[in-house]
Amino acid sequence: MIVMNGALASAVDARDRGLAYGDGVFRTVALRDRLLEAWPQQWARLAEDCRALSLQCPEPDMWLDAIRLAVGETRDAALKLMVTRGCGLRGYLYPQPQQCTWLVIASPLPVSDPDLLQQGITARWCDLRLSAQPLLAGIKHLNRLENVLARNEWQDPQIREGLLLDQQGRVIEGTMSNLLLLTGRVLLTPALEQCGVAGVTRERMLQSAARLGCRVEIGDVSVEQLLAADEVGVCNSLIGLWPVRALPQRQWQQFAGLQRIWQDARQNCQRIALV
Amino acid sequence: MIVMNGALASAVDARDRGLAYGDGVFRTVALRDRLLEAWPQQWARLAEDCRALSLQCPEPDMWLDAIRLAVGETRDAALKLMVTRGCGLRGYLYPQPQQCTWLVIASPLPVSDPDLLQQGITARWCDLRLSAQPLLAGIKHLNRLENVLARNEWQDPQIREGLLLDQQGRVIEGTMSNLLLLTGRVLLTPALEQCGVAGVTRERMLQSAARLGCRVEIGDVSVEQLLAADEVGVCNSLIGLWPVRALPQRQWQQFAGLQRIWQDARQNCQRIALV
Repeated sequence: MIVMNGALASAVDARDRGLAYGDGVFRTVALRDRLLEAWPQQWARLAEDCRALSLQCPEPDMWLDAIRLAVGETRDAALKLMVTRGCGLRGYLYPQPQQCTWLVIASPLPVSDPDLLQQGITARWCDLRLSAQPLLAGIKHLNRLENVLARNEWQDPQIREGLLLDQQGRVIEGTMSNLLLLTGRVLLTPALEQCGVAGVTRERMLQSAARLGCRVEIGDVSVEQLLAADEVGVCNSLIGLWPVRALPQRQWQQFAGLQRIWQDARQNCQRIALV
Repeated sequence: MIVMNGALASAVDARDRGLAYGDGVFRTVALRDRLLEAWPQQWARLAEDCRALSLQCPEPDMWLDAIRLAVGETRDAALKLMVTRGCGLRGYLYPQPQQCTWLVIASPLPVSDPDLLQQGITARWCDLRLSAQPLLAGIKHLNRLENVLARNEWQDPQIREGLLLDQQGRVIEGTMSNLLLLTGRVLLTPALEQCGVAGVTRERMLQSAARLGCRVEIGDVSVEQLLAADEVGVCNSLIGLWPVRALPQRQWQQFAGLQRIWQDARQNCQRIALV
């Protein structure tokens, strides 16, 4: 079900700036067994992204009421939480006063194949190079055409994710995931100051790695560094962790380090019950 | 009024990919005195942008029927024509088969102040630098957050437009317009191969300039070149031509050359009557 501005709905005003300009942000939250995963972090990121774009973010209680309404009795759901700048006059200038539109869209939770966590996935390199925009980097905003184009470069369902470089050739992320490299006891993830989306699962993995005594680094990552890593994985809030088993230039057999960090992240996940 | 997929409507499915990802394109068309301005070029650009993103564009007759429905008896309107990739499952992969959403949104035509054409406008430089994405450059797609941020850098209503540079410092366009430089009998407009939107009015101005015997150049434009031009103007399908009278570093008094080209563009505009 879909809840808009706190009430059941199915449609958005055709003049909404979310549609017109992609003028808004979103986060994807997993509901499993009536538990909202990583809710404090998810809400914090959503609010932070709203602040970065001068959008008003509803308070957590409003979101929780809307989520309850959207999921009904369902125990598991993929929840898309979205905030747009609402309707306005024609033109790019912000409407004054702003009346944001906020949405909860509940979809079936994708069935997660436990083999992927155990055995890893096949990934590829995308041809599209991410553009650099420091004012938007890290934000999970509604301008996602680059991800759309990148994801549609391949059709083979055996290839689960495509990795994206920026225009300087640095590795940034997957089309729908963040990227993690483990080498010895150093967990490295690409910096997201020029492009990319800062996902909550990435943040949780970094915290767990630190908790387990790894050194955590955020910085530039080259293709060579990635291919030389002991372990490589991609993560997001629905898939959790997928270790990478194969890229065209290399295969990996070893995933125990990232799996251990993911296990910690799961154990320490802050879940809240939808009552 | 709003027409969606050929019928009166006011809202779009909240799961539309236009909202979720900005996965779509648009054009803005002026209806003046029941005449649709530059319709053949507008439709051609819309269809070309659709092709570039693998979207299905309705045929002109379908658009014209929808426009008639959207405007009713109104003689003047600003028409936004939009095509999105429609609804789909969660995720970036294109839905198969695609069922595009297409919209006509009719708004009041902004009152055009003839003084602006005669006396020119005050413009500014935007701080935001456009990002480079050759796969999307030129396309009038729904990912317009850069334009939104750039337009909201200033509030002073006396400043009519902000000019945008790319990350190499090249001048590209205005927040809502294309840019034209006239020096002697050479009309220069920035190349749009890395960023920017290729507007129909820009195209019409280039054609008119050539018709009047100017040399037309499309290429890199530096700030210095712009400041040294005999005349500078911005254009789009609603404002027509606005010569630039003032930028922080320079004032211009002379607009006759661009005004002459605009006069030709208006005289040779391909209008079709909405009957």
